[in-house]
Amino acid sequence: MLGIKYLSREDLDLIFETADHFKEVLSRSIKKVPSLRDITIANIFFENSTRTKLSFELAEKRLSADVINFSAAQSSVRKGETLIDTVNNILSMKVDMVVMRHPNPGAGIFLSRHVNASIINAGDGAHEHPTQALLDSYSIREKLGEVAGKKVVIVGDILHSRVALSNIFALQLQGAEVQVCGPRTLIPKYVESLGVRVEPNLRKALEWCDVANMLRIQNERMDMSYFPSTREYTRQYGIDKKLLDSLGKEIVIMHPGPINRGVEITSDVADSSQSIILNQVENGVAIRMAVIYLLASRIK
Amino acid sequence: MLGIKYLSREDLDLIFETADHFKEVLSRSIKKVPSLRDITIANIFFENSTRTKLSFELAEKRLSADVINFSAAQSSVRKGETLIDTVNNILSMKVDMVVMRHPNPGAGIFLSRHVNASIINAGDGAHEHPTQALLDSYSIREKLGEVAGKKVVIVGDILHSRVALSNIFALQLQGAEVQVCGPRTLIPKYVESLGVRVEPNLRKALEWCDVANMLRIQNERMDMSYFPSTREYTRQYGIDKKLLDSLGKEIVIMHPGPINRGVEITSDVADSSQSIILNQVENGVAIRMAVIYLLASRIK
Amino acid sequence: MLGIKYLSREDLDLIFETADHFKEVLSRSIKKVPSLRDITIANIFFENSTRTKLSFELAEKRLSADVINFSAAQSSVRKGETLIDTVNNILSMKVDMVVMRHPNPGAGIFLSRHVNASIINAGDGAHEHPTQALLDSYSIREKLGEVAGKKVVIVGDILHSRVALSNIFALQLQGAEVQVCGPRTLIPKYVESLGVRVEPNLRKALEWCDVANMLRIQNERMDMSYFPSTREYTRQYGIDKKLLDSLGKEIVIMHPGPINRGVEITSDVADSSQSIILNQVENGVAIRMAVIYLLASRIK
Repeated sequence: MLGIKYLSREDLDLIFETADHFKEVLSRSIKKVPSLRDITIANIFFENSTRTKLSFELAEKRLSADVINFSAAQSSVRKGETLIDTVNNILSMKVDMVVMRHPNPGAGIFLSRHVNASIINAGDGAHEHPTQALLDSYSIREKLGEVAGKKVVIVGDILHSRVALSNIFALQLQGAEVQVCGPRTLIPKYVESLGVRVEPNLRKALEWCDVANMLRIQNERMDMSYFPSTREYTRQYGIDKKLLDSLGKEIVIMHPGPINRGVEITSDVADSSQSIILNQVENGVAIRMAVIYLLASRIK
Repeated sequence: MLGIKYLSREDLDLIFETADHFKEVLSRSIKKVPSLRDITIANIFFENSTRTKLSFELAEKRLSADVINFSAAQSSVRKGETLIDTVNNILSMKVDMVVMRHPNPGAGIFLSRHVNASIINAGDGAHEHPTQALLDSYSIREKLGEVAGKKVVIVGDILHSRVALSNIFALQLQGAEVQVCGPRTLIPKYVESLGVRVEPNLRKALEWCDVANMLRIQNERMDMSYFPSTREYTRQYGIDKKLLDSLGKEIVIMHPGPINRGVEITSDVADSSQSIILNQVENGVAIRMAVIYLLASRIK
Repeated sequence: MLGIKYLSREDLDLIFETADHFKEVLSRSIKKVPSLRDITIANIFFENSTRTKLSFELAEKRLSADVINFSAAQSSVRKGETLIDTVNNILSMKVDMVVMRHPNPGAGIFLSRHVNASIINAGDGAHEHPTQALLDSYSIREKLGEVAGKKVVIVGDILHSRVALSNIFALQLQGAEVQVCGPRTLIPKYVESLGVRVEPNLRKALEWCDVANMLRIQNERMDMSYFPSTREYTRQYGIDKKLLDSLGKEIVIMHPGPINRGVEITSDVADSSQSIILNQVENGVAIRMAVIYLLASRIK
């Protein structure tokens, strides 16, 4: 599972149906299934990510897999070991599957060519974050019945976002229309070649769309020259309740988290009935259970 | 379980009886019970605390709960997320109970008003640390038969201690008499309004008491102006074997740990038969099992 | 299990036979055995060590032990607590066995005299690292049939290596011949008193040996005055394919990891069929399962 780019429409359908099953499991009193008692999974995080890591860990534990965690901060990577050596070492300890977050775009693909294991890309730089896009589509499908034919705008820093690229691939694969909206300096050139329209005006984008996926603004980039100030950004690309109500229709509000309340969206928008932000988090565990389960069935 | 302040005498008795049961379980060869196989608990620590965290983790594992750990150092909190958002995100992943340590007094109470989950306060700033006070009372009860009517002096930096306040509440609730003893600058004004006598002289306090609970001096505060030097502190508020033996009676020595040997108490006092310091640590696991078990039974 | 120094030839044979059994278990689909369901093990690491810690953790989990992790970075040790107090506190929580890495030589031995628990030394400064030596010997035995009579050269920074000393003890105990080879400033005086020949010339050492154990050069020492530059080191003590092929015989290449590719050995040597580096990692889990299992059987 290296990127949405490598998946077919059928793959997505299978993942969503499997996630439906696990979502039902998660609604039970005992949320654990013994499916993967014979599988050991290593979570290898070369970048911090509490939220994604927690979601994967819970998914793995609820499938009864054995879980080991490896984070770069305390790792031999800092001692100059190569990525392939690090992973081969872990695999030598009879690990069946690797969930990896890495700052370099393509790290998962590179690794998959050199080691013999199932690899799940949990984010590779500004490239892809496939399970996030899967849970996003799954949440739209849950809220609106289907993804096909829906109009989705992705708002914010598209250039540095792995969430945006994976979402564009996943949404188009399912027959949704996609626009992006954000400061000109934060829209990469390639989006138009993917058939994605760039809409610089947020109000127009919202009037057009059924769903607005509001990307997180990363504070650490705020002081860079190509970046607007927080105040400017919020004024042009933030959504408040007044703007939302003025649209004369109900659009769905999404956000991959963590939210900067008052920056991308105000609190009353985040907590409104139009927001499915916490559903996204909840669905993340079911989607990751589905992905891990389906990959594991290919090992056995 | 936000503070001892919110508990009744009956609550304490129920917790202690339940802890008696788990203490018996912990003396068996197989120390695990399947009670909470359907419960997931998140340990959310916004401050480091090896000892308390380890004790909670062991308690949770011995109840067969699923455990996930979240520490602020690697968290999205540093990315500007609000406390409520962080916890709601974790709860969305179908977590049933939260054990939280937080530097701000009242953080647990604030949270309990805004999220829908069982919350155990594992220390909120200099406010409360209820499970510590419970294990302290439980250890006195174990050593002396009962807490009612006993005389307990809490020695040290009362001002910055969450252990002191929770202990005052718990001891008074059970009918014990409480004094505090320490440098004038480290005794908060409110203690006398709680009916606690301030005894500036350690020898007099020891002559009066049945139990001395010696608080830890935190080295990081040592260079502050209102704080005595370590040498001064030890001379006036430290206990050595000579002082202990000169009392002409056996008092019980407690310490919440970690001990600065030679500062609050000397090694021969810490390791004497009058010291129940390691019993406190042992009882901590049983007490936390009891608290978690009783809270979980309200979820189901 | 404090050091190879305290073991007999019979101990080693028993450990290897037990590891044979667990290696067979690890080749099964379900790699877990319920042997230690009633044992709780604390991994106490006062120094970072991803690789060794991961290997111990997997060994413990595959024996179904309960595992708790304690690392110094977040610990009360930094608050001035003594080693004995830290460990006694953990043991009070009904922990049966301690796996400890510590920067001070002899820390495990010191501890074993003061606390009542089974202790496994997972590396104590530049002193011993017994499970590493056991897995090294086990890997030689697996590759060459037996260790007795074999010629082994340990190449590199012997002075700062715990791997070297434990290997010398283990190899001699089994009747192997040992040489060391490395820069004169990095060979401690005591090796000759142990009956180990110092061979300053790498080519001569390789012509003599059956097995070359290439120690890791620690980059953090590279800028010290007694240390050669990396380039110098590699030219005199590194192995490349040309050197290996010129020997006219097949020697076995070992490395405790993590490898500095191009420093101690080149990539084509590390990945050649003569290298058993990944077998060492794999055998590490079986060896540690055996050591833990045998120690636990003395507790019960």
